[in-house]
Amino acid sequence: MANVNLIRRAEIGREKRVRTRAQLVEAANTLFARRAVESVTVDDVVQEAGVAKGTFYTHFDSLEALTAAVAEELVQSFDELLQPGRTAITEPALRIAFGCRAFIDKALNDSRWAAVAARMTAANPQSGENLRRRLLEDLQHLSAEPPSAELKLEIVVGIMLHMLRVLGEGRLSSFDPDAVVSAILRAIGLSLQEARSVLKRLPAAGTEKSLRTTAS
Amino acid sequence: MANVNLIRRAEIGREKRVRTRAQLVEAANTLFARRAVESVTVDDVVQEAGVAKGTFYTHFDSLEALTAAVAEELVQSFDELLQPGRTAITEPALRIAFGCRAFIDKALNDSRWAAVAARMTAANPQSGENLRRRLLEDLQHLSAEPPSAELKLEIVVGIMLHMLRVLGEGRLSSFDPDAVVSAILRAIGLSLQEARSVLKRLPAAGTEKSLRTTAS
Repeated sequence: MANVNLIRRAEIGREKRVRTRAQLVEAANTLFARRAVESVTVDDVVQEAGVAKGTFYTHFDSLEALTAAVAEELVQSFDELLQPGRTAITEPALRIAFGCRAFIDKALNDSRWAAVAARMTAANPQSGENLRRRLLEDLQHLSAEPPSAELKLEIVVGIMLHMLRVLGEGRLSSFDPDAVVSAILRAIGLSLQEARSVLKRLPAAGTEKSLRTTAS
Repeated sequence: MANVNLIRRAEIGREKRVRTRAQLVEAANTLFARRAVESVTVDDVVQEAGVAKGTFYTHFDSLEALTAAVAEELVQSFDELLQPGRTAITEPALRIAFGCRAFIDKALNDSRWAAVAARMTAANPQSGENLRRRLLEDLQHLSAEPPSAELKLEIVVGIMLHMLRVLGEGRLSSFDPDAVVSAILRAIGLSLQEARSVLKRLPAAGTEKSLRTTAS
């Protein structure tokens, strides 16, 4: 009986920790939506979450670690939203183009989202593990032409992360999402004609709204 | 006469500031060469430079700002080393390929250099101004096919920065520099045949040593 209580108590502790961590991530997310990421302090976050400052440091080493967790959360949840639309596509190159353009459209529509997501890399270059794994699988189904699928993955990730950063900072005078997707497709080995054909067959307008429609 | 003295005194002050700043950058550079960038503290830097801690903060807001300055210095001085070899090339695409492969080879030969250089972005996304300007000029001489030269610049920068990061972390099992350069050339609009032709005409082996030879 004592044993059962101990197990249950450990469980409650674990659940509470998960809840508190989620509260901190949620609080940071709310603050980032309201003002510049740079201006948010640990004090702001604990006040918003309604927890003690010491609690913050039992969950995160630093504000940067929390920002990375927020970014991971933003990217993962958007990626999950894409899955129904993505898995309905059978052609690997079209699947890659679909994912890339959805992320670019999302970043275009929400520069705050893009800025926070781009920070993920700085704090954790191997983040977005599910995303990377799925992208690698698609790349392995493309032609075996060099570079290797492993290197193609890094090329796509490099372009996409930089685009999120650029869109997060809003520093390009004009931006053509299709041109970026085409550049990505060509970098991973498609010809101009093949890239054009993929773009033509992409489900129209990858805005957040239409993605929700695709996903539902 | 008093006026001249004041001017001279201001000059001496300026020179001293420039010297102290350079001392701090040099000290950090020495420390980064010896051990992991993450393990270096402000105390280590001031001790190595032989200056007071307060002096550090008159020159840099934080250790990150100093790391960015070190990175900027590393990248700029390597870029300057490349200029003689680069300006001898008249074809824009070949010039771009020359620069990219030289940076990749440098990163392959010196992962510490790559790791520090990659940090530049995190701290200052618009860094490497000379490099960006020159690259943009070359891109403007390529075909006017979309994406715009401005967007092509960000695509090249995105791939290159990510490659520096990846090589700095040493996390790819194999790495083919030519395959990356080819991917870059195709992303900015060259066909596979054109990219192959450029690679064939690239001055052989862009190792640091041969670059020094080219530059001298």
